Amino acid sequence: MDLYSYIRDVPDFPKPGIVFKDITPLLEHGPALKDALDRMVEDARTLEIDKVAGIESRGFLFGVPIAAALGLGFIPVRKAGKLPFHTNQVEYALEYGTATVEMHIDALQKGERVLLVDDLMATGGTMVAASRLVEAAGGVVTSCNVLVDLSFLNGRKALGNKRFHTVLAYD
Amino acid sequence: MDLYSYIRDVPDFPKPGIVFKDITPLLEHGPALKDALDRMVEDARTLEIDKVAGIESRGFLFGVPIAAALGLGFIPVRKAGKLPFHTNQVEYALEYGTATVEMHIDALQKGERVLLVDDLMATGGTMVAASRLVEAAGGVVTSCNVLVDLSFLNGRKALGNKRFHTVLAYD
Repeated sequence: MDLYSYIRDVPDFPKPGIVFKDITPLLEHGPALKDALDRMVEDARTLEIDKVAGIESRGFLFGVPIAAALGLGFIPVRKAGKLPFHTNQVEYALEYGTATVEMHIDALQKGERVLLVDDLMATGGTMVAASRLVEAAGGVVTSCNVLVDLSFLNGRKALGNKRFHTVLAYD
Repeated sequence: MDLYSYIRDVPDFPKPGIVFKDITPLLEHGPALKDALDRMVEDARTLEIDKVAGIESRGFLFGVPIAAALGLGFIPVRKAGKLPFHTNQVEYALEYGTATVEMHIDALQKGERVLLVDDLMATGGTMVAASRLVEAAGGVVTSCNVLVDLSFLNGRKALGNKRFHTVLAYD
């Protein structure tokens, strides 16, 4: 199935000059959504992991189905102020400014292996910040998996030697 | 499985006097997450629906697994300014202020039957606003399903004669 045909280019979003990769046509098409999830789960099954963490909010879309398929728990990584319990925080540079992400301090047991999931990787800043949260909570990031990699932004370099997997890539 | 034991009360969040129902312990426990999703899917299977819509951002956690289990597409209902394409908007009163939700204008075909999913229903304001978005896009809401209903806030009344299903209820 050609999943690229379900990704829509939206010019000038969220600001002039940016071409946004809109995944909603893929989400809204049952067979395309199933195929995308199957491919993400297929890769995740090859990993030795204890939990799946997803990054708010589009990482939630893919992280929970992967966790459920593997029978694992899911950890939400959220923007500042959204999680109700005690959190660790990491501030980082975005493509369009700065942001802070949080994770509950009790989300992980020491040494647990985590698969990080998001819908899309651009410069990798969000993924690196989420990795630091996993490490701050005592865990280890086993792999960073996304649906779409904007390869031309070279986010993989920011991940250092961490494993990375994407379903779709734009050079 | 007693899923209530995986819901944590957090007092004074997001503001003094509110006791927040924190679902993260349930999400983070693999068997509890699986059981919750299984119960939500079991109910959804009884419905004649064409698509599943989930409300940002915790509705994404449950909406996509339900859609995927049924082989259906998923529609994200998002806060203002997040969706990149043309949208309909509905402004509504929240328990703690006001908010605006949006849906892409091309998310539905005329007459499609939609299951609305969120993590929690309080006064029902968000669910009613999302219902209006479905109707504005030409769809019909078949049922409103959540993990947690704060029954003492009587959100069901706000839904009128719409079908409603919850896994957990607090009287």
